[in-house]
Amino acid sequence: MTSQKTPIAPPKLGEPYLLTPGPLTTAYETKEAMLRDWGSWDGDFRAMTAEMRTRLLDMLGPGKEEFDCVPMQGSGTFAVEAMLGSLTARDSKILVLANGAYGQRSAKTLAYLGRDHVVLDKGDYLPPRGDEVAQILADDPAITHVVAIHCETSSGILNPVGEISDAVYAAGRKLLIDSMSAFGAIELRPSEVRFEALVSSANKCIEGVPGFGFVLARKSELEAAKGNCQSLSLDVHDQWAHMEKTGQWRFTPPTHAVAAFLTALRAHEAEGGVAGRGGRYTANRDTLVAGMRDIGLETLLQDRWLSPIIVTFFCPDDPKFSFDRFYDLMKAKNFIIYPGKLTIVDSFRVGCIGQMDEHVMRQVVEATRETLNEMGVTNAAPPEIAIKERAKLAA
Amino acid sequence: MTSQKTPIAPPKLGEPYLLTPGPLTTAYETKEAMLRDWGSWDGDFRAMTAEMRTRLLDMLGPGKEEFDCVPMQGSGTFAVEAMLGSLTARDSKILVLANGAYGQRSAKTLAYLGRDHVVLDKGDYLPPRGDEVAQILADDPAITHVVAIHCETSSGILNPVGEISDAVYAAGRKLLIDSMSAFGAIELRPSEVRFEALVSSANKCIEGVPGFGFVLARKSELEAAKGNCQSLSLDVHDQWAHMEKTGQWRFTPPTHAVAAFLTALRAHEAEGGVAGRGGRYTANRDTLVAGMRDIGLETLLQDRWLSPIIVTFFCPDDPKFSFDRFYDLMKAKNFIIYPGKLTIVDSFRVGCIGQMDEHVMRQVVEATRETLNEMGVTNAAPPEIAIKERAKLAA
Ligand SMILES: Cc1ncc(COP(=O)(O)O)c(C=O)c1O
Ligand SMILES: Cc1ncc(COP(=O)(O)O)c(C=O)c1O
Repeated sequence: MTSQKTPIAPPKLGEPYLLTPGPLTTAYETKEAMLRDWGSWDGDFRAMTAEMRTRLLDMLGPGKEEFDCVPMQGSGTFAVEAMLGSLTARDSKILVLANGAYGQRSAKTLAYLGRDHVVLDKGDYLPPRGDEVAQILADDPAITHVVAIHCETSSGILNPVGEISDAVYAAGRKLLIDSMSAFGAIELRPSEVRFEALVSSANKCIEGVPGFGFVLARKSELEAAKGNCQSLSLDVHDQWAHMEKTGQWRFTPPTHAVAAFLTALRAHEAEGGVAGRGGRYTANRDTLVAGMRDIGLETLLQDRWLSPIIVTFFCPDDPKFSFDRFYDLMKAKNFIIYPGKLTIVDSFRVGCIGQMDEHVMRQVVEATRETLNEMGVTNAAPPEIAIKERAKLAA
Repeated sequence: MTSQKTPIAPPKLGEPYLLTPGPLTTAYETKEAMLRDWGSWDGDFRAMTAEMRTRLLDMLGPGKEEFDCVPMQGSGTFAVEAMLGSLTARDSKILVLANGAYGQRSAKTLAYLGRDHVVLDKGDYLPPRGDEVAQILADDPAITHVVAIHCETSSGILNPVGEISDAVYAAGRKLLIDSMSAFGAIELRPSEVRFEALVSSANKCIEGVPGFGFVLARKSELEAAKGNCQSLSLDVHDQWAHMEKTGQWRFTPPTHAVAAFLTALRAHEAEGGVAGRGGRYTANRDTLVAGMRDIGLETLLQDRWLSPIIVTFFCPDDPKFSFDRFYDLMKAKNFIIYPGKLTIVDSFRVGCIGQMDEHVMRQVVEATRETLNEMGVTNAAPPEIAIKERAKLAA
């Protein structure tokens, strides 16, 4: 566990900490960068766009020269749809590896787009494994692409993208990664894990404000993508080609969100880049998980699968516990938490990302302890069925 | 010409005025609203979304009860595509009335979507007239929808949506309006001009920061829109149904841009709503046009067609004039202007919208005069061909 030297300043305007996986608590300086207006056509803003693209590419490490960065207006889902609709051809067949809400969303997106696809559905959180992927690809030669979720934010599991990538490329197929909630805090280097493109957004581990996402893709794929997309707005090839030619976004960019993001990117570098950022989040998670376990709360996942992004806890079995009241009482203590997304057992989630450190996480644990006391919850243990459920993963 | 009592404060951080039709110069208070973070799931933010939707609907005046407001992440083009792809059916046939870049963009969007369509292409700026529309609809009973551009920002012309609407509904078809650059400053009341939906965005006449757009559509059309859209991200029906049920956006909203927009909406009301805002912009335009004509610069359009949004001026015929140098010298004086978009004659554009009043417009005129002097341009008159071009509209 690393120790933070200077504690991170709390939200200056006194608003609650967002223990949610984006939007999240950002630095005041990041938001201050939004106090002026920019012309989107002007050279000053073009330079900001260029710096942003370069900084994002730099995070890929060795091999980054083969990639380019294409920002895309809208939320993360828009960027995922842009990647799926632009980097697969109309006659591609895509295998979606789903173990939660975001894998399901990719499948739904492909259904909307009318792209042929199959889903390996592992339920609420069980990870798709390399050997399963290999088997499906061997059985179905029509599959051209595989979509994986890096950190499945709905449970917090860190999926094994390394072994998935190995299986995909051993079978001569292509991998696209939704790294929305992981990029910038968990290394994903093309020199180590091969992939064609990944997608993330401004308001996750880089700690910017929401407003756009970005696709980091091999230039060869971007070039080949011409004509694939059935949406003008979400055409990654067109956005890329225009940006290469003019330095501008095709359509009005979220100028203020870009300015904030640039400040956030510089802070990310100052913190030690992906390793530094990931280190802080890991310390956040370790402090959180140890503290919550001490209270008697249990995590959905075994340590091996816990991401440093967000952690799912089972709700106490105690009839005095209600999530809505827990939420309100935690908010009154200035902590905004997140409901769970499991279908079988009640759960809640606590994010480890954003402008927070271990000191804050210790406060979160204390607030939880007090809140359970206030609610009269004496035993924080989950129901029997939760333990059984968890055993599925251990096996 | 109305006279501003208290001059509008200049940009607090000293950045240039944006004489561009969005992003534009916003009030400092609008940007200050972005200095805190919101949880998108939390009740506080849901209340902000609700207030925003109500305020936008209120601008429609009588008959607003039949409409609802659906915000959409992304730039204005995303919202236009969302409207076109969601509020027309897969077998609809759409007539696009084009007289500039944004009409062309709607046509291009429909081509991407694979929606059958025809284009009435009036060239760089000539307005599509009611009788032309009536004729085309009479000749082609397969046409189900007509798309009109309210203010075609590429020339600044205010298109005659009233007579277009009359022609559309006399023929029993449906009208969709791209009112991106006009909504909030030019009345568009369904009780006066019938339409099914209009679209605009945060960073135009309401003077917010860019990050999202919105569709104001008849509830009957929103209900009927289920299953039309081929994009999950841009599905207006789905966004609407989810928002009605939960009060939340389906995917992460641009929380800070929404907060800024709410501040901007309150300022819009304080200024006297659409009439007050439109009055200031009209005074801006009148001051600008009179001053520029005094210098010898000429407008593309006759007064009757000039919008209070943005004005196109012909470039001087003088060989000493170059747009790039003009742009740089104007920027050095803290004014960012906009290049023209005419295909036949060189031109530039000056926006009248944003946090500016007549005092500022007088400074713009003076800066132009000085800049032409510095460039050694002695005669600001346009080439012969420009005058001939303009005569087409007068006829
Ligand atoms: C893994 C993953 N994919 C996609 C998304 C969707 O992003 P957005 O909510 O910005 O549309 C998220 C959001 O948390 C996510 O965590
Ligand atoms: C009439 C009109 N339609 C569409 C757009 C596109 O909006 P955006 O640049 O936000 O995509 C604009 C932008 O100025 C516009 O003026």
